[in-house]
Amino acid sequence: MTNKKDVFAGIIIIGNEILSGRTKDLNTSSISKWLNSIGIKVKEARVIPDDEKSIILTVNELRKKFDYVFTSGGIGPTHDDITSESISKSFNLKYETQKEAFKILENYYSPGEFNEGRQRMAWMPSNAKLILNPASGAPGFYVENVFCLPGVPSILESMLPGLTNNLVGGDPILSRTISLRTLESEIAKALKNVQENNMSVDIGSYPFFRQGKIGVSIVLRSKDKSKIEDCSLEILKFVKEKKIEIVERE
Amino acid sequence: MTNKKDVFAGIIIIGNEILSGRTKDLNTSSISKWLNSIGIKVKEARVIPDDEKSIILTVNELRKKFDYVFTSGGIGPTHDDITSESISKSFNLKYETQKEAFKILENYYSPGEFNEGRQRMAWMPSNAKLILNPASGAPGFYVENVFCLPGVPSILESMLPGLTNNLVGGDPILSRTISLRTLESEIAKALKNVQENNMSVDIGSYPFFRQGKIGVSIVLRSKDKSKIEDCSLEILKFVKEKKIEIVERE
Repeated sequence: MTNKKDVFAGIIIIGNEILSGRTKDLNTSSISKWLNSIGIKVKEARVIPDDEKSIILTVNELRKKFDYVFTSGGIGPTHDDITSESISKSFNLKYETQKEAFKILENYYSPGEFNEGRQRMAWMPSNAKLILNPASGAPGFYVENVFCLPGVPSILESMLPGLTNNLVGGDPILSRTISLRTLESEIAKALKNVQENNMSVDIGSYPFFRQGKIGVSIVLRSKDKSKIEDCSLEILKFVKEKKIEIVERE
Repeated sequence: MTNKKDVFAGIIIIGNEILSGRTKDLNTSSISKWLNSIGIKVKEARVIPDDEKSIILTVNELRKKFDYVFTSGGIGPTHDDITSESISKSFNLKYETQKEAFKILENYYSPGEFNEGRQRMAWMPSNAKLILNPASGAPGFYVENVFCLPGVPSILESMLPGLTNNLVGGDPILSRTISLRTLESEIAKALKNVQENNMSVDIGSYPFFRQGKIGVSIVLRSKDKSKIEDCSLEILKFVKEKKIEIVERE
C-alpha cells in the first residue's frame, strides 16, 4: 500500500431554499458518499444564501483550508443563479463565455431554442474546466481545487462519477456512461441482474430529461477496466433484446 | 406594519454521520421552518465533525455573528457526545451537573436505571438553562444566545415549540409558491424583469420533477404581504402571455 496523506474536502451548499427550510439538502450526502469511496474525507459542509459576498468569502476561506471544495447550486439560467460569477470574483478571474460549454449547449438545444437564458449557462470563470452533465446537458466547471455543481440532486449525482478521475484520493475508479431512451422501471430488473453478476462494478442509474424526452443514464464504475467492459456488454445485450434506443455512450 | 429589525440565526449540525453521507440532515430544515415562522432568518448552517476544537471554534465564530445559534447533535449519553463539554469551553464555563436536569432524568428513568451514562446527560455548562424535551426526557440547554438540541430529528422537532417564547423574532417572513409547467430557461428573462421591479421580494426559481413531468416552482418571500401580491400579479401576467400552465399555487 502506498503511504498517501489524508485528503480533505469541504462542501458549500448555495441556496436560500435550504436555509428557508423549504428544501432538504440531499447533496451533502451524495457528495460525501462519493468522496468517501475515493478516499477523500469531508471535514465540513456549509449552507449559505444566494448572496455574492457570502459565496466569495466562503469559497475563499474553504479553498485554502481543504484540498478540495465542492459547491452545489446557483449555476442555472435564472436571475438567482450567481455562483459562476461569484466564483470568478473569488479567483479574480474574468466571467466570460466558456467556448466548449457554449458548443455543448448549442448542440444540446434544438435550433432556435438556445436563448439568452440558456447561453448564460456557458458563462464561467476564465479558463474554467468543464464537468460534464450526462443528465441535462449544462456542464458544471472547476477552477483550481473548487468544483461547481448544480443544485438539482439527480443532476448533481449524475455528474459525480465523471469527476472521480480528476481528484487525487484513493485508487482511481473508472467509469462509463450508457444513456438510454427508457424509464428506470423498465430496466430495473435487468439492471439488478447485471449488478448481481458484476459485484465489482458499481452500477448507478440516473433518470434524465432532455429535449422534452425522458431517459436513464447508467453509470458503471470500477477500478478494473475489463470488468466495466464485461458489464457494459451485458447491459447492451438486454438493451438490444428490449429494443431500447441508445442515446449516448461515453 | 411595525418596524422590527431583522433577526438572524446560524445553525451548527454536529455529527460525523452527516459528513460521511450515511445520514441526511433533516434538522436544518425543521429548525429553519420554525424560525421563519417566528420572524428569524437563518443566514448560515454548518455541518462539522464530532471534534472538540471544531465545535469550540465554530460556536465562538457564529455566536458573535448572529443573534441566535442552534446546535444539533452530540448531547446524548455516549463517549462521542461531546457537545455539552465543548460548549462549556466555548464560554469558559465549568462543565458540571445541572441540578434541574438531574432531577428530570432521575424521575424519567425507573429506579436503578439512571446509570452513569444517563447521568452524563445532566452535565452541562455552569448555569445553563434547560430546553424541555417532551419526547424522551433528556433536556437540551442554552447559554446566552446558543441553544443546544439533540440530533434525532423527531426529538429535536418536539422541543422547538417550547422554545418559541424564549426568542425575540422580527416580522414573520411570508412566502408564496407558484408552480409552473415550464423550463427555467423559458422564463429566466421575464422572471429577471420581475425581480428587478420588486427588489424587496426575494424571488427563487426551483426546477422540479414530479410524476414524470418537469416544472419550475417560483417562490416569493417577503415580510410585506402586499409586495408579494404585486409581484405575484406580474408573474401571472407573463405566465398568461406565454400560455404556461399553472400546476399549483400555495
